[in-house]
Amino acid sequence: MFKLYEFATSGNCYKLRLAMSYLEIDFERIEIDITKGESRTSEFLKINSNGRVPVLETPERKYLPESNAALWYLSSETDLMPEDKFDQAKVLQWMFFEQYSHEPFIATSRYWMHILDQEEQYKNELEEKSPKGYAALDVMEQHLEMETFFVGNKFSAADITLYAYTHVANEGGFDLSKYTAINDWFSRVENVKNYVSINE
Amino acid sequence: MFKLYEFATSGNCYKLRLAMSYLEIDFERIEIDITKGESRTSEFLKINSNGRVPVLETPERKYLPESNAALWYLSSETDLMPEDKFDQAKVLQWMFFEQYSHEPFIATSRYWMHILDQEEQYKNELEEKSPKGYAALDVMEQHLEMETFFVGNKFSAADITLYAYTHVANEGGFDLSKYTAINDWFSRVENVKNYVSINE
Repeated sequence: MFKLYEFATSGNCYKLRLAMSYLEIDFERIEIDITKGESRTSEFLKINSNGRVPVLETPERKYLPESNAALWYLSSETDLMPEDKFDQAKVLQWMFFEQYSHEPFIATSRYWMHILDQEEQYKNELEEKSPKGYAALDVMEQHLEMETFFVGNKFSAADITLYAYTHVANEGGFDLSKYTAINDWFSRVENVKNYVSINE
Repeated sequence: MFKLYEFATSGNCYKLRLAMSYLEIDFERIEIDITKGESRTSEFLKINSNGRVPVLETPERKYLPESNAALWYLSSETDLMPEDKFDQAKVLQWMFFEQYSHEPFIATSRYWMHILDQEEQYKNELEEKSPKGYAALDVMEQHLEMETFFVGNKFSAADITLYAYTHVANEGGFDLSKYTAINDWFSRVENVKNYVSINE
């Protein structure tokens, strides 16, 4: 059976729960409390030397860190991944966009405000992250004004990647009310089969 | 023919030149000077709404932003990509590691010091980036103490991704002298067929 080493409220970990629910893959959940340093213990560093969650353990007991690499592994050769090679590269394009231009601003702001509950202590950092997070949301909105999903107008791993932290961006202080196309896309994602919320 | 929209001294752009040289793929180079805002013009934003280089244009005139997505596209089904699906996911693991835990610290420091030549102006930011860049180098060193290349002891797209900015990390103020395993790996990469330097 697959095992998911996760901090449940992390969007990066939620990506893999959403994918495995969609794909009807059974898995065991193992909670690693990153606020208590549990991803930096010598035991955990043996399965991910970079000291981060999630890590996906395969039924063959092999370990895969990096949420989007694990999501790619689960999605490959399923209907979460387009068949065309160029479209597969477009899925990866949005995954790299998410990790470079979106997650460091939106997820990190949410971590400080919502998980650590330290909005005052991180006031300056939050102000610095804000315009970069909104820039990522603007890129998404512009794309979704023309497309129903991120690649090929069909639900794919690219949507799972971007949905994970975008739909809780308000918990990082981002006002989503003006993003009409993003909100409509939330509804489409939430209507796919076997959808589970981040709190389940 | 492929076209590469690039800022030549950028490691992200160099990844694609190194891969296309190895794979003996002809391509045209189109310089986009990011220090003059040329990646943010309305014309360029039509090919990448996120306003970044590189962008790879395929012979079919389709555009692919994000260096590692384009590198994956070029490498897929060639000997730069392992055949085993789990090993393919390991290549992606290192690509996501590079974009999240390595590039924002090492490449950004190099940009300020080496490309903009503004070490003094960015003194505080450089101090903040330094420990995170060294942490990424430590993860690489630890891995390369046991392996000759990043995945499956064979040169792959994962090595191209990580070589691009690591071998010029000194230009971002990082002292590489103590990283014996990384320096040995540099030599192995520089001996693969059709190797080209970042200045070519």
